[in-house]
Amino acid sequence: MKKSGQSPKRRQILDAAVKVFAKNGFYNSKVLDIAKEADVANGTVYLYFPSKDDILISIFEEQMGELIEYIKREIQKESGSLNKLRKLVSMQMHLIETNSDLTELLLVELRQSKKFLQSNATDMMSKYIDMIGNILKEGIAEGVIDKSVDVTIVGTMLFSAVEGLATRWILEGASYSLDRAADTVIKVFLNGIKEKTEGGDN
Amino acid sequence: MKKSGQSPKRRQILDAAVKVFAKNGFYNSKVLDIAKEADVANGTVYLYFPSKDDILISIFEEQMGELIEYIKREIQKESGSLNKLRKLVSMQMHLIETNSDLTELLLVELRQSKKFLQSNATDMMSKYIDMIGNILKEGIAEGVIDKSVDVTIVGTMLFSAVEGLATRWILEGASYSLDRAADTVIKVFLNGIKEKTEGGDN
Repeated sequence: MKKSGQSPKRRQILDAAVKVFAKNGFYNSKVLDIAKEADVANGTVYLYFPSKDDILISIFEEQMGELIEYIKREIQKESGSLNKLRKLVSMQMHLIETNSDLTELLLVELRQSKKFLQSNATDMMSKYIDMIGNILKEGIAEGVIDKSVDVTIVGTMLFSAVEGLATRWILEGASYSLDRAADTVIKVFLNGIKEKTEGGDN
Repeated sequence: MKKSGQSPKRRQILDAAVKVFAKNGFYNSKVLDIAKEADVANGTVYLYFPSKDDILISIFEEQMGELIEYIKREIQKESGSLNKLRKLVSMQMHLIETNSDLTELLLVELRQSKKFLQSNATDMMSKYIDMIGNILKEGIAEGVIDKSVDVTIVGTMLFSAVEGLATRWILEGASYSLDRAADTVIKVFLNGIKEKTEGGDN
């Protein structure tokens, strides 16, 4: 299914599903609940999605796809790789905080779908990590990031750190501020990977 | 159920379950398969564990509990917080690499158990993060770690970075070396959080 040219009804169903899954959890949600929330007939849902798992996977692929495009566009407005990394982390944390229904769905519910783990949705994660990797490469070319940095490993670390902070934030009921977490992530990573101009150990 | 005084049969069942879950996946494994692998009668398994979910949760709690105790003991042999952090990360990565059946079970299968997510097993994750937090506090007291570091946030970041690298390593079929990943994690984090003695920006 293509993202472009999607019908408003399809979008309506996906938006309703995000709400229903977040409220009842993926396993306890019924297609009927989604149809009700979307204000369409039960059969209409099946016109667009063969199963509940397919709804979940579509949410992931499309929302993540849109998110990546949005973040990419915003990041291009920043000058220099370090500013791009700062923007990336703060945008990501902010989006998590302001879309907590969707975040809970993606971080907690989605991992329980066997079909998801076998789908190509994990490619999306790789795309996100590649996006971070490309900024790191830029930084190496600019001379502001240590050239010995392994961009795949550091990209995975950065992605995972943000994901882990978001998951804990959701599971523990927002026991810390994600804005403060974003500041810490940025500070630790930028200090951790920057090119040392004044020498020093390690 | 207490870890201490556990019967050899109980341990036999848990060890067999790790193998069976890793081979067939949690959902496709049957208690009967576990009984066979452990060379005990089907009913014997139920004497110790009410359900398959309980086996999985016991594996997590006990293995993680033992792992944390083991890592704690080893870490105490190191002098200074920075050496302790180095040891922690390299031990963790090494354990992941040498126990890939167990790691796959914990990182991929376990998250699919609703009962797990609702159990107190996530407390274990907090304990692990607290252990990292305590080393960070030591480092602040020693004057080698920046005192503005938020130990909960950095502890979560470090835990998540290692977890994320391990998950990707498993899902992508070991496309990078975990030893190299450990070196990168150590380098980035230690540079990222160390107390600056020579001043500088950021």
